Amino acid sequence: MDRKQLIEAVKSQMPAKRWEHTLGVMETSVILARRYGCDPEKAYTAAILHDVCKFWPVQEQAKVIRENNLPQDLLDYDKELWHAHAGAFIAKRNYGIGDEEILDAIRYHTSGRQGMSLLEKVVCLADYIEPGRDFPGVHNIREIAEHNVEKALLYAFDGTIRFLLDKGRKVYPLTIHARNGLVDEIKLSEPVEPELQN
Amino acid sequence: MDRKQLIEAVKSQMPAKRWEHTLGVMETSVILARRYGCDPEKAYTAAILHDVCKFWPVQEQAKVIRENNLPQDLLDYDKELWHAHAGAFIAKRNYGIGDEEILDAIRYHTSGRQGMSLLEKVVCLADYIEPGRDFPGVHNIREIAEHNVEKALLYAFDGTIRFLLDKGRKVYPLTIHARNGLVDEIKLSEPVEPELQN
Repeated sequence: MDRKQLIEAVKSQMPAKRWEHTLGVMETSVILARRYGCDPEKAYTAAILHDVCKFWPVQEQAKVIRENNLPQDLLDYDKELWHAHAGAFIAKRNYGIGDEEILDAIRYHTSGRQGMSLLEKVVCLADYIEPGRDFPGVHNIREIAEHNVEKALLYAFDGTIRFLLDKGRKVYPLTIHARNGLVDEIKLSEPVEPELQN
Repeated sequence: MDRKQLIEAVKSQMPAKRWEHTLGVMETSVILARRYGCDPEKAYTAAILHDVCKFWPVQEQAKVIRENNLPQDLLDYDKELWHAHAGAFIAKRNYGIGDEEILDAIRYHTSGRQGMSLLEKVVCLADYIEPGRDFPGVHNIREIAEHNVEKALLYAFDGTIRFLLDKGRKVYPLTIHARNGLVDEIKLSEPVEPELQN
């Protein structure tokens, strides 16, 4: 399956409105990949496929998770998380994607995880800030994304966590591990304050 | 060591101001234990000891964790978490507390954990709402604590998590497991909405 065929095949899996979102993530992933220095081709492929299962009936998504040994604890958390793990499985089985880095970028684009690769960060962040997104704080995250992918993604995850707390919903533990990992990365990348150097 | 000796011994481990807080937790733990139906004597003992290590030098707290096989990942998170796990160890070794329920109530009074016992919830919540506490939202939590220990504790944990996000600090994963567990317990205890019953 060449890229044009892949795009048509994935496009057929979702309503037109959601395909527009996917186009936004494809464009933004490539921009971020070039800006921060990971493979834009891989980012593009992961972006095409990131929501491939999103508009399947949730029972179908759950079935993919149950029957293929994907993390079963997902089923105890928000349904919004399911399509990412199911999507990585489908990308491999139905669309022949064999590159584990691309599959991980699909798999963790919603939950995140501790120790995310740059490609995972790029696709996850692109999903938050593609041009069609409009939620409180998105402009701020876009601005930060101009110069710091970790800080932008931390703000994005923290917004999701606050939203879940406000709604009385559960927070998937991987998301906490993801943002804790980013806190550590940001701290390591910042210059030590002079008084602490001595 | 009788109770009076225990109180005097623990009192000597902290400044007067912190002892006032401990007195507040002792009083509130007993009230909550009676209100919700766990052993007030155990709640009282756990409350006496809950901050026994809090004013030890943090290096001493870390040493207790490192040298006694307590969870080592604590050392990667906020120092505020250390005294609870170290305190449970010291309560057993130095003060002869053998009751594992009491020790768990000391151990998890700061972080919480998934599947908290009622005694753990009571001591943890008392630590948040004892009369000396004054932080934004404490009145609301006290009101909820009049009738629902799980909801009150969920609000308390969520406040802590928001505070940590605001400060760019890491969130200890057990705290997320604790509040997720409370979300589940609250959902199970609430009547199913009519349209979902059919």
